[in-house]
Amino acid sequence: MAAEAHFSGVIAPVLTPFDEDGDADADRFTEHAQWLLDEGCTALAPFGTTSEANSLGIEERLELLEELVDDGIDPAKLMPGTGTCSLADTITLTEHAVELGCGGALMLPPFYYKGPSEEGLFRYFAEVIEGVGDDRLKVYLYHIPPVAQVGFSLSLIGRLLREFPGTVAGLKDSSGDWSNTAAILAEYPQLEVFPGSEVFLLDGLKGGAKGCISATCNVSAKAIRNVYDVWKTPEAEHLQAAITALRKAIQAYPMIPALKAVIAHYRGDPGWAAVRPPFVPLPAAEAEKAIRTLADAHGFTLDFASAA
Amino acid sequence: MAAEAHFSGVIAPVLTPFDEDGDADADRFTEHAQWLLDEGCTALAPFGTTSEANSLGIEERLELLEELVDDGIDPAKLMPGTGTCSLADTITLTEHAVELGCGGALMLPPFYYKGPSEEGLFRYFAEVIEGVGDDRLKVYLYHIPPVAQVGFSLSLIGRLLREFPGTVAGLKDSSGDWSNTAAILAEYPQLEVFPGSEVFLLDGLKGGAKGCISATCNVSAKAIRNVYDVWKTPEAEHLQAAITALRKAIQAYPMIPALKAVIAHYRGDPGWAAVRPPFVPLPAAEAEKAIRTLADAHGFTLDFASAA
Repeated sequence: MAAEAHFSGVIAPVLTPFDEDGDADADRFTEHAQWLLDEGCTALAPFGTTSEANSLGIEERLELLEELVDDGIDPAKLMPGTGTCSLADTITLTEHAVELGCGGALMLPPFYYKGPSEEGLFRYFAEVIEGVGDDRLKVYLYHIPPVAQVGFSLSLIGRLLREFPGTVAGLKDSSGDWSNTAAILAEYPQLEVFPGSEVFLLDGLKGGAKGCISATCNVSAKAIRNVYDVWKTPEAEHLQAAITALRKAIQAYPMIPALKAVIAHYRGDPGWAAVRPPFVPLPAAEAEKAIRTLADAHGFTLDFASAA
Repeated sequence: MAAEAHFSGVIAPVLTPFDEDGDADADRFTEHAQWLLDEGCTALAPFGTTSEANSLGIEERLELLEELVDDGIDPAKLMPGTGTCSLADTITLTEHAVELGCGGALMLPPFYYKGPSEEGLFRYFAEVIEGVGDDRLKVYLYHIPPVAQVGFSLSLIGRLLREFPGTVAGLKDSSGDWSNTAAILAEYPQLEVFPGSEVFLLDGLKGGAKGCISATCNVSAKAIRNVYDVWKTPEAEHLQAAITALRKAIQAYPMIPALKAVIAHYRGDPGWAAVRPPFVPLPAAEAEKAIRTLADAHGFTLDFASAA
């Protein structure tokens, strides 16, 4: 087991754009992924919650990931979401990610059946890891109880780490509960821990976290990266305060439609605002208000000039 | 729109057996489906919650449904579960079911993202129905908020019925809340309503329900069918009391592992007890206790002699 982290820094769960027929738009997708890396993302987590991954089909996910790699995104920088509620589909997606050379796989627990036992969840991950059966696999556990409802207890994390020490590499904590992140950091220092929001970036880094994986990295990676780069200096505090305030301003709107509306606006590409049901786009007046508020109160803007 | 119901009576969400490698076992599956029809099921709902459908892969579901039809199960009697959290996969599964001639499709709402708007859910079902684009499609809405968390409000049901009157045909109510079932029956008499438990069978039939779709039909279809056949007679009351008592006795155990343990016992086929993670099999002592209690207190047994 290498002591060096596989992933660190600022990681965006890449938004998935759709075309006018509602199909995933591979061109806009890879363009956005490349722009995120240019903006300072250290890595990308396509097919996260923010990516509307759970509204995509298994085939769509396989194809889109191949597009990213074919279009020149370094697979070592990719930590695609591969966890579905189905053991079989999770193995399919994870095998595929490993074969493409992805640096890791971000894995939801099986989330349809509620209240599974710890033993059942342990067996699930054991079957996924043994089913994939590839030493290159690095699993990042995806703890997001507000959405998945099913999560990872401290004892389940410990059992998985003991049983699969070279494979279970990290955890994204989207509980929104700093005390949970702190407990994981204290208990399992060998784990690469990423809070699911940049609100906890500085506290996380001070406590041993490796960075953050956050929805808002889709629009504010540059500012978040600044905090990451200077986190050991006194300057970090006020930069953290600014990204926290910006995150809170964005969070006042439905996150995925708002992020897409912001990108549509600054790209001058209204089609970017499309979401897949059960999401609905932000109404025009709401979108305008969001964009104006972010600009006026936070000096927020996006620059796509270099990428255009 | 035909006034005649497409489905009625006693419908089993068919358990999915697994082989020793953990793969879905098509032979045991079709054998069980045929036995359920022999026991008095009027129709079958493979790939329900009880079927561990959400632990199966999309490909597995396509193949297993084809096996059922290839092995001679009348597709008009099939109402497979086709709802996943993904619009794309739901269209794939539903198209396939329609092409095979299935009488209906039982559809969960998209269940990963929590708290979707009514508008978002409406658009989701509109896109599924328009995506499948086949007049033969009959949609049965699957309301199971204790598991899916996302459900169907009365107003959403009404909107879907108004917009797709020939297509939205029915609803399975697994809320466990009789007042909800009663409200749907009162408000939408044109809908084929099935309570998700035989506990509500007699009350349901008196209120206009068409039957029930219930997990325990996998082991007690015969007794449930008896209630259905005589529901207008005075005799129905005590038969209903007996199936209610049996259901409650089975419910004392984790439902899916318990049903499989019971079938494994009476078939003399221990492999039948296998479940897919995140479920775990009932421990042997628990299984023995369940089987003994059901036999002693409810005179419960299963007869596979004719099917053997």
